[in-house]
Amino acid sequence: MNTETLLQAVRWNDQGLVPAIAQDAASGEVLMLAWMNAEALQHTAESGRAVYWSRSRQSLWSKGESSGNVQLLQELRLDCDGDTVLLKVEQLGGVACHTGRRHCFYQRWDGTGWQVTEAVLKTPESMYGKTP
Amino acid sequence: MNTETLLQAVRWNDQGLVPAIAQDAASGEVLMLAWMNAEALQHTAESGRAVYWSRSRQSLWSKGESSGNVQLLQELRLDCDGDTVLLKVEQLGGVACHTGRRHCFYQRWDGTGWQVTEAVLKTPESMYGKTP
Repeated sequence: MNTETLLQAVRWNDQGLVPAIAQDAASGEVLMLAWMNAEALQHTAESGRAVYWSRSRQSLWSKGESSGNVQLLQELRLDCDGDTVLLKVEQLGGVACHTGRRHCFYQRWDGTGWQVTEAVLKTPESMYGKTP
Repeated sequence: MNTETLLQAVRWNDQGLVPAIAQDAASGEVLMLAWMNAEALQHTAESGRAVYWSRSRQSLWSKGESSGNVQLLQELRLDCDGDTVLLKVEQLGGVACHTGRRHCFYQRWDGTGWQVTEAVLKTPESMYGKTP
């Protein structure tokens, strides 16, 4: 793989990161937005599985390493000015969100408040093995 | 509209911004990612048209104000931790990208290079009135 070509096209921000949108390749649903550094993008392209950079933990984060909700890469795309990445993925387990919902964008604005629109399919306890 | 409720749920970054993904409400295609400050989000929710914050110009940016490629808001969503917004929109003119393509994510990684996958539907000159 031509890693230099992969990484050089990206306009990293001043923390060396780029936002990465994960979209369900089959349904088109936008699942989540996370961040990547160069190493995460390289791992993702090489392994065919989504690897992000966890800003809270300041470490590489292989999506699904704890929960099993791995994202298999089907397409890797870059936008016009190189500062956003789009991953089309197969979402194993059918759950992308750490809350146990299909995707993270489950709050919908109705003009007066943010309404929760998606059901919890798996409890966080069942995914992460925490006792309630 | 309950502006305080709208804005308080958002976790703005240290520049007071949040990434906003625009998705075609009909096709599901991810069109672009831009940024919003509180004023942009409020204008978007109130007007029903996508308004972003231009980081390069440091000013509010009513999408389509120059090009005519306005985005009519159909759904406004917020993710689990409040740090990303998703807009489902009707893309007037069928072109979201300033390069004249349907969407901004027209570079696809094929393992060796970034390949352009989308045709230019409108020349930037025809959208922005610049002479070539």
